[in-house]
Amino acid sequence: MARPCGLIALLTDFGLRDIFVGVMKGTIQRIAPSVEVVDLSHGVPPQNVQVGSVFLEASLRYFPPGTVFVAVVDPGVGTERRAVAVQGGQHFYVAPDNGLLTGALVLDPPTKAICLSNARYQLPPVGATFHGRDIFAPAGAYLASGTPLKELGDPIRPETLLRLPDASPRQEGHRWIGAVLFADRFGNLITNVRREALDRPVRRVIVPELGDLGPPRTTYGEAEVGAFLALWNSFDRLEIAQRNGNCAATLNWHPERRLEVIIETEPPLPPNERSNAATGR
Amino acid sequence: MARPCGLIALLTDFGLRDIFVGVMKGTIQRIAPSVEVVDLSHGVPPQNVQVGSVFLEASLRYFPPGTVFVAVVDPGVGTERRAVAVQGGQHFYVAPDNGLLTGALVLDPPTKAICLSNARYQLPPVGATFHGRDIFAPAGAYLASGTPLKELGDPIRPETLLRLPDASPRQEGHRWIGAVLFADRFGNLITNVRREALDRPVRRVIVPELGDLGPPRTTYGEAEVGAFLALWNSFDRLEIAQRNGNCAATLNWHPERRLEVIIETEPPLPPNERSNAATGR
Amino acid sequence: MARPCGLIALLTDFGLRDIFVGVMKGTIQRIAPSVEVVDLSHGVPPQNVQVGSVFLEASLRYFPPGTVFVAVVDPGVGTERRAVAVQGGQHFYVAPDNGLLTGALVLDPPTKAICLSNARYQLPPVGATFHGRDIFAPAGAYLASGTPLKELGDPIRPETLLRLPDASPRQEGHRWIGAVLFADRFGNLITNVRREALDRPVRRVIVPELGDLGPPRTTYGEAEVGAFLALWNSFDRLEIAQRNGNCAATLNWHPERRLEVIIETEPPLPPNERSNAATGR
Repeated sequence: MARPCGLIALLTDFGLRDIFVGVMKGTIQRIAPSVEVVDLSHGVPPQNVQVGSVFLEASLRYFPPGTVFVAVVDPGVGTERRAVAVQGGQHFYVAPDNGLLTGALVLDPPTKAICLSNARYQLPPVGATFHGRDIFAPAGAYLASGTPLKELGDPIRPETLLRLPDASPRQEGHRWIGAVLFADRFGNLITNVRREALDRPVRRVIVPELGDLGPPRTTYGEAEVGAFLALWNSFDRLEIAQRNGNCAATLNWHPERRLEVIIETEPPLPPNERSNAATGR
Repeated sequence: MARPCGLIALLTDFGLRDIFVGVMKGTIQRIAPSVEVVDLSHGVPPQNVQVGSVFLEASLRYFPPGTVFVAVVDPGVGTERRAVAVQGGQHFYVAPDNGLLTGALVLDPPTKAICLSNARYQLPPVGATFHGRDIFAPAGAYLASGTPLKELGDPIRPETLLRLPDASPRQEGHRWIGAVLFADRFGNLITNVRREALDRPVRRVIVPELGDLGPPRTTYGEAEVGAFLALWNSFDRLEIAQRNGNCAATLNWHPERRLEVIIETEPPLPPNERSNAATGR
Repeated sequence: MARPCGLIALLTDFGLRDIFVGVMKGTIQRIAPSVEVVDLSHGVPPQNVQVGSVFLEASLRYFPPGTVFVAVVDPGVGTERRAVAVQGGQHFYVAPDNGLLTGALVLDPPTKAICLSNARYQLPPVGATFHGRDIFAPAGAYLASGTPLKELGDPIRPETLLRLPDASPRQEGHRWIGAVLFADRFGNLITNVRREALDRPVRRVIVPELGDLGPPRTTYGEAEVGAFLALWNSFDRLEIAQRNGNCAATLNWHPERRLEVIIETEPPLPPNERSNAATGR
């Protein structure tokens, strides 16, 4: 079970041009001056809980055990959605209960969870639009500096934490139909296809707008300059890229546009082929 | 009177793509390796001293007492404007004397002020275009690590610090005419109307381009999806927003465009109504 | 010879919207929790090794001796290019061996260099697309916390480190032909002309698209509002700016566009003039 290591990692959709993140950090410093704060990212597309969940899930393993992740992508702020804190086997999580922890709950199963209901650990007066400052930053600061989870509010059953509907690609025979989730800074298109979710090796990747991209590569350099390619990226997700180019810009991709990706895996051998194979033919 | 707590908060219009902010931080680390630095924001619109003042004013209360705010929005760098350091009851401030401290001087009245004239606490040779590095970062580093304010330069009378002309909305009977100051990352339009500046409850908010928005709400969720609304935001300023939308983009708002906001407060009751009201009619 | 001071400065082209930088910081914290990390910049134009080299070169002198610079602008990631660590007289450098250290190697000549070949100091499994996380961040963390350089891999001769071809302006008589390298956040156009590279005072600067800008100024305020000017900037590079304007936007400059800058220096006096001058005429 996790013990806090004194580090907070912040993940939000607040961007960095306003004072939202700075004020969260000031709030943390007021409560816990010796806690360290690392910015995981503040570039989650506005209100995109699914991408926030992917960012968090992909990052967990790279942080010290006992990191307190304070994650705020919160389109329902001020509504009835709960604010929660969760203790996993590896880390702690403070977030709105809106699915943002979906990926983390799979990788680091919760051992305890509470609803952030204890006003003593909040910033009065709690407003209705900036719980990052009023509720989540204080909770993270108290947790990271050693306040027990149970002090911060009432226990809830971890099974009741909201999970996003399964966003894995759907399987149709030996094909999987995936979709682009977001574009990174270089214009690479990141999909919902995780390497370990596929049951067989991939034969080829097809993007209807681009044609057959062949099998996923492991480096950008395997494609010719300007060519499109599919790639298992550094977080083991399928990515559509353009060698030395900005794939998102070239395709004029934007977050509202659905872009499908078809993954053909090697078909299973039919039974008689299998036995033939077994005889070493 | 403030005592430095070892924390510097940086506020600039430098953005984060260049090395300006990084070099200021290196300079601080050279002088005071044990000082902590927090980014309040580097996203003040370029050279917009008024928005810088609002950012600073809104943030003060969330930082630990004794924070040294190093604020650099400095269109007059290299001209005759003074560089100053100010000690308030709560915090310290290091900035060009161009109005950037206007809001802070009201909330945290100055007890002492100096002109940053002592070259011993500057980075030689002081250039004419980057005082953030050559003058303000060193001053902040020395102050935050315990150098007395008076060492850094010659005393000046706090009354002589430059204040921006009053940018409050103007009153016309029971109407107040305000204006949009800037758009935040979500496209919400932040105005110059502070909640405590109004003498009476607000009946309705009118934006000529949008019509009657009704009274200010407390959460975005109170409007229908796609609808425009007025809202008291988390810093108690009036904000014009679009539910689940980007108001600035929808209105094609840009920093050069003046957008007026009319606030109708409840009219005071005429004298005879007041006495009737008192009798409980 | 440099000794690590416990500070890492990060320079990349990763931007801040994704999790690349956050994950590098998590990785550093896992290995070396007491090391401090400062962001020098993550805004190097994507894959622009030359601008990365300029950013690093310009920043060195402002950081504490013994800073470990972890610099990742790495278009060749996954190819045969080496990953290296270099010890200079002032600082340490961890980077791909692709020219990114060109400027630093001049200002802070290397005393030792190694190839980052020791897998013990890398994050397994090392992928092919994110060496910032798998190789460079770990190397920086180990170096900054005291692991000797030679532990991290095999020694290489510093002369073999790749340098970019000389990008200085070319001289034609008493004229120098330079070029714009990048635009900063304010739209100022930064050139490849360093002040100390010119042998004589500058008489005038000509940008063919703008005409004769006269001699370089020392402050923006020396030009009229809206006018274009040449300026020695705060890092002693020639810069083309527009007073109170965004020069890059006005000129519609973009990174693919070559923009030449002609610098006319004072011609040397002919021999007879020189002797006359010597007699004090």
